[in-house]
Amino acid sequence: MRYAVLGTGIVGRTIAAKLSSLGHETVIGTRAPATTLARTEPDGYGNPPFAQWQADHAAVRLVTFAEAAAWAEAVVNTTAGAASLDALTAAGADNLAGKVLIDVANPLDFSAGMPPSLNPVNTDSLGEQIQRAFPHTRVVKALNTMNCEVMVDPSRVTGEHDVFLSGDDTDAKKQVAEVLVSFGWAAASVIDLGDITTARGTEMLLPIWLRLWGALGHADFNFHIAGTRTSA
Amino acid sequence: MRYAVLGTGIVGRTIAAKLSSLGHETVIGTRAPATTLARTEPDGYGNPPFAQWQADHAAVRLVTFAEAAAWAEAVVNTTAGAASLDALTAAGADNLAGKVLIDVANPLDFSAGMPPSLNPVNTDSLGEQIQRAFPHTRVVKALNTMNCEVMVDPSRVTGEHDVFLSGDDTDAKKQVAEVLVSFGWAAASVIDLGDITTARGTEMLLPIWLRLWGALGHADFNFHIAGTRTSA
Repeated sequence: MRYAVLGTGIVGRTIAAKLSSLGHETVIGTRAPATTLARTEPDGYGNPPFAQWQADHAAVRLVTFAEAAAWAEAVVNTTAGAASLDALTAAGADNLAGKVLIDVANPLDFSAGMPPSLNPVNTDSLGEQIQRAFPHTRVVKALNTMNCEVMVDPSRVTGEHDVFLSGDDTDAKKQVAEVLVSFGWAAASVIDLGDITTARGTEMLLPIWLRLWGALGHADFNFHIAGTRTSA
Repeated sequence: MRYAVLGTGIVGRTIAAKLSSLGHETVIGTRAPATTLARTEPDGYGNPPFAQWQADHAAVRLVTFAEAAAWAEAVVNTTAGAASLDALTAAGADNLAGKVLIDVANPLDFSAGMPPSLNPVNTDSLGEQIQRAFPHTRVVKALNTMNCEVMVDPSRVTGEHDVFLSGDDTDAKKQVAEVLVSFGWAAASVIDLGDITTARGTEMLLPIWLRLWGALGHADFNFHIAGTRTSA
C-alpha cells in the first residue's frame, strides 16, 4: 500500500517509519519540503531536525502535501490540529477523494497557555470538521488518544489497553483496524465507537491524558475499557 | 461518620444505601421532602418513586438540603449537574464550610437533545465552579466517570479499573480515598490527578462514556489506565 503521512513532527515520523518498516511505500508530506530539509535546529519539542531523521530513513521521501496525497492510496493526518484543515486543503480535495484518511490529530489550543484546551470541542470535533470539509474522503479518527511510541508499539504498555475508531465508512474502519493489527494491536483491543461524531469523545480524552502524563511521570500508558465486550 | 447525600435520583439512592449499609448515619437532602415523598410515579429515568425506595431503606431519612448539610460531617453531591450550584446554595455555604464535599455530578447539557454536551467544559468544570462558589468547602471530584452501580461495587466490572480524584485539599482526597476503599476499590485503583482543575479531564470523559455505553450495550464497564504506576 502507498501511504502519505502528512506532517513532519514526531508523530508523523514515528508512523511513517513504522509503515515503511512493514514494507509499505511511504512518503511524508509537508508544506515546503526544501525549507523543512534546510532546518538544522531541533524542533519546538526538542526533536532532531527532519534532515537528520531522513538520513536514517532514506526510503521515506519528503514531498509536498499535494504530491503526497496525489501519489498515495491512503493518507495519515499527523499535522497539528490547528493546522490540519489548511494542510488538507493544500493536499487537495481531489487528491484525497475516495481515499481512507486516518486522522490522528487533536485540536489542541495553546492560545491561553498550558495546559492546552480543545477547539473545536463538545458539540463538534476536528474529525467531523475534516469529514465535512472533505466529504468524498473516508475519514477514520484513530490513535489520537496515546503517545506516538505506543501507537506503533502497543507492547510498550503493560496489560490490556485499547484504541478507538470513529468514522462513517464501515469498510474504511475495517481497513484501519487491519493497519492497527499490523502495528501490533490485538483485534479485540480495537473499539469501534460508531460514526465520526464519536471523535468528540476521543478528542476529549486529551485533557485527562495530559494530566495523567503529569501524575504518572511517563507517557507509556493508555486507556483500557474494562468490562465485558459484546460484538457490535 | 454522618453523611448527607444531596439528590434523590438513582445515583444518590445508590450511594446513600451503600453508606448506610457500611454503618454510616446517612440522610438524603432534597429541595422539598414532602413533595418528593408524595410522588407516586416513576422518575424520568423509570426509577420507582422515592417513597418506595425509602420504604426499603428506612434508616435513611429524607430532609431538606440545608438540614442535611447542617447535620452531616461530609456531603456527597449527586444532584443533576445543571442544578448543583442551586442545590448547594440551598444547602448553605455556612453548613458546608470546612466539610469534605464529594462531587459526583457531571454538567450534562440536554438543551440541544441527545447525546448531551457539557456545560461548563474545556476551560472550566463543574468541580471548579463548586470550589469557587464554596471556597471554605473541601471539594473532591470523584466517581463521576462510571455508572452508579459500579461506584459502590467495583467488582461488577471484570479486570482492573480505576477511579479518579481531583481536588485542592490533600487531606480531603485522602479521606475520600478511604471511603472508596470501603466501597470495595483497591487503593492502587484510586488515581489522584491533582488539583480541582483536573476535574475538567474527568468530566470530559462523559462523551466517550456515553458512546461506549451504546457500543457495548451495557453500563458495567469502566476506564482503566494501563501502564506502570509511579507513586506521586
